[in-house]
Amino acid sequence: MIDRRTFIAATAATAAAPGVAAPLRSGGAFPEGFLWGAATAAHQVEGNNVNSDCWALEHVTPTVFAEPSGDAANSFQLWPTDLDLVRNMGLNSYRFSLEWARIEPEPGAFSTAMLDHYKAMIEGCRARGLTPMVTFNHFTTPRWFAARGGWTAADSPQLFARYCERAARHLAGSIGYATTLNEPNLAGLLQEVLPPTIGPRLVAVDKAMSEAAARKFDVPLFYAGNGLYAPDPAVVRRNLLAGHAAGRAAIKAVRGDLPVGVSLAMLDEQAAPGGERLRDAARERLYAPWLRAARGDEFVGVQNYERNVWGPAGKLPAPAGAVRNYAGNEVYAGSLAGTVRYAHSVAGVPVIVTEHGVGTDDDRVRAALIPAALAELRKAMAGGVPVKGYVHWSLVDNFEWVFGYKPKFGLHSLDRTTFKRTPKPSVSVYSAIARRNAV
Amino acid sequence: MIDRRTFIAATAATAAAPGVAAPLRSGGAFPEGFLWGAATAAHQVEGNNVNSDCWALEHVTPTVFAEPSGDAANSFQLWPTDLDLVRNMGLNSYRFSLEWARIEPEPGAFSTAMLDHYKAMIEGCRARGLTPMVTFNHFTTPRWFAARGGWTAADSPQLFARYCERAARHLAGSIGYATTLNEPNLAGLLQEVLPPTIGPRLVAVDKAMSEAAARKFDVPLFYAGNGLYAPDPAVVRRNLLAGHAAGRAAIKAVRGDLPVGVSLAMLDEQAAPGGERLRDAARERLYAPWLRAARGDEFVGVQNYERNVWGPAGKLPAPAGAVRNYAGNEVYAGSLAGTVRYAHSVAGVPVIVTEHGVGTDDDRVRAALIPAALAELRKAMAGGVPVKGYVHWSLVDNFEWVFGYKPKFGLHSLDRTTFKRTPKPSVSVYSAIARRNAV
Repeated sequence: MIDRRTFIAATAATAAAPGVAAPLRSGGAFPEGFLWGAATAAHQVEGNNVNSDCWALEHVTPTVFAEPSGDAANSFQLWPTDLDLVRNMGLNSYRFSLEWARIEPEPGAFSTAMLDHYKAMIEGCRARGLTPMVTFNHFTTPRWFAARGGWTAADSPQLFARYCERAARHLAGSIGYATTLNEPNLAGLLQEVLPPTIGPRLVAVDKAMSEAAARKFDVPLFYAGNGLYAPDPAVVRRNLLAGHAAGRAAIKAVRGDLPVGVSLAMLDEQAAPGGERLRDAARERLYAPWLRAARGDEFVGVQNYERNVWGPAGKLPAPAGAVRNYAGNEVYAGSLAGTVRYAHSVAGVPVIVTEHGVGTDDDRVRAALIPAALAELRKAMAGGVPVKGYVHWSLVDNFEWVFGYKPKFGLHSLDRTTFKRTPKPSVSVYSAIARRNAV
Repeated sequence: MIDRRTFIAATAATAAAPGVAAPLRSGGAFPEGFLWGAATAAHQVEGNNVNSDCWALEHVTPTVFAEPSGDAANSFQLWPTDLDLVRNMGLNSYRFSLEWARIEPEPGAFSTAMLDHYKAMIEGCRARGLTPMVTFNHFTTPRWFAARGGWTAADSPQLFARYCERAARHLAGSIGYATTLNEPNLAGLLQEVLPPTIGPRLVAVDKAMSEAAARKFDVPLFYAGNGLYAPDPAVVRRNLLAGHAAGRAAIKAVRGDLPVGVSLAMLDEQAAPGGERLRDAARERLYAPWLRAARGDEFVGVQNYERNVWGPAGKLPAPAGAVRNYAGNEVYAGSLAGTVRYAHSVAGVPVIVTEHGVGTDDDRVRAALIPAALAELRKAMAGGVPVKGYVHWSLVDNFEWVFGYKPKFGLHSLDRTTFKRTPKPSVSVYSAIARRNAV
């Protein structure tokens, strides 16, 4: 149970490979109709997601969560405010997720009221000229699903597909782009990519937390949607791959012309001289199976925050003087373009950047990163990579999983008592690019 | 776990005592500022109250519930529609309840977002010229509260008071009238008043359901807010009486001038010649301790649906030709006035009729009952009983506890798929009385 993005970040290289960082230059229009968005995810902003696996784990002893999610940004009630923020930034898209735990609060019992809630959000996007990008499942699963083993259960793909089918029947008509799962590619592999300084401890706490939840709910295994510890990672990966395929088929059966994809967590894996073998191995282990699975999709969602630079003996440290994010890792503007290039080379389908951003208390880092990363992205596009949109993570500071509210990824800050959102200076930077449709 | 109102109804007399039913006459103004309202309760209309004791019990095996509450009337989202209905009827008050399970989702963890939700409802009442009557707890308690023994736990009054204090701090400023508990007077006594034809079976299922929930959540006792089976009824009653006192003190400490009371479930206990002893015994057993407890309050809430007529050997049957409600019991218009007279005679404080109505598929019964009962109520008032308001149960057909959605108490019908509310003909009858402030 951990933020995969942050764990990947924790493993990032700490030195640049020579020649990798192309000089950034400004200017350049994006294609007409390019999607400019901001993203959230249900559990991270809605608040009071009491029927989810994650809420349950936040409240067992021991827990690996720094703090509980609580009210989050109260977006379950304040979603019209969120949509107004997106519109007022001059963006034309909003990425958010449906909460499975709300829509199917008990096995096979679907809530029309909650489907209506998400329908209102989707129509609220349309009313504001925003294309809704809807993630059907962003990590959290219903507590009952986790209590029967979650994604370790043999029938988990079918249960996910049943949920997708019901949600699609109610909602698909107005969705712009759908993704089945968020960052499923790292499930079961987090143990491998954790740095040795913190990995064993966190995996141990995660395992103890999962066991405490199993006792609390009197079940053999309580396995949450984004568990860090996995009894058998290969089983989880197999079921998630099958879940994507079955969920996609269920959605397409309802509305065949709706573009459906999957969003993958990807670092820009780079090779310093002699590091090609390790780089390729990392790509194959972490991304390639999912990118190949995406070949049948209308697009692949790429979510990138950092890079890894591989030397012959392993990851290299960041260059001296590198700008750092909240976790101490390098902020590298070219990583997005590099990742998008690689993703497209394997998947062979158009790319949507469904997440990109930086966790930092210093918004100047974000304000500098956005134009620099977009300039590089445009170069990749000029080089032939079809990219349909860019969605910044996140609209507002939110609940960053095991790290609680400390990491700040938001374009807006959040007052956790009044729920007031305040734009950071980077909003005007990103807004100007989106309005001009050019960087 | 049962609808106390309905169980009381199930025990109602089936024959009238001579001379009890005074002839009804029309006409007569009510005092200026008289409160005309309609009532709901959170679990019965909000929907998806997944963190409550009741939801948990609806989903264990065995369960005594005919069906789960599910989306109910989706009033958690559609409360503005509900308030509009009340206003459009020409009423000046709305009675609803706060959901403890939402406001305190984990022990000691209070949700500002959910308090904001109820604050918006209270302010929504004021914006429509409606005086908000707020029940702090209408039967359902948080699942965590039930899982630690509910009202059997020695510290339950203090836990309730802590919740009342936090809710009052956020909400008390705009509340018109507050009640601590809904119908606590019957807790632990339902076993006694159940008719022998159904009582033992329901109590047995209720007990088995409670035990199944205890196993599911791995606790010694799962005791819900309106449990039918009680390990020790005297303990539950003692804690509820202490809970009312502590909750009231907590609310008054926040806002001393806010009227605070408790709503009691009361039948009009009548005596045929020779039945006085049994009538008095029933009154003492079921109501008197709570009416005496209400002596320190600003008002007592009376909730009446039917009467009992006692003969020397027990309850008498209803008179031949009596109009019957959905449960087959007599509909008797004079019962409200009789109950109000008795309640005031013991409590010595003003009365608010916080519930009155009839469960029936035939709205003509409701349309006839309302003016007839109000004419009798006005006579009681003319005789010196201070009554400050009348609140009809219910605004809309809803989840009637163990009986599910079958009993229809609403002034409006409910489409359970679209959540559309449609006024029944009785709306115009009640509305005309409220607008004229005269019956």
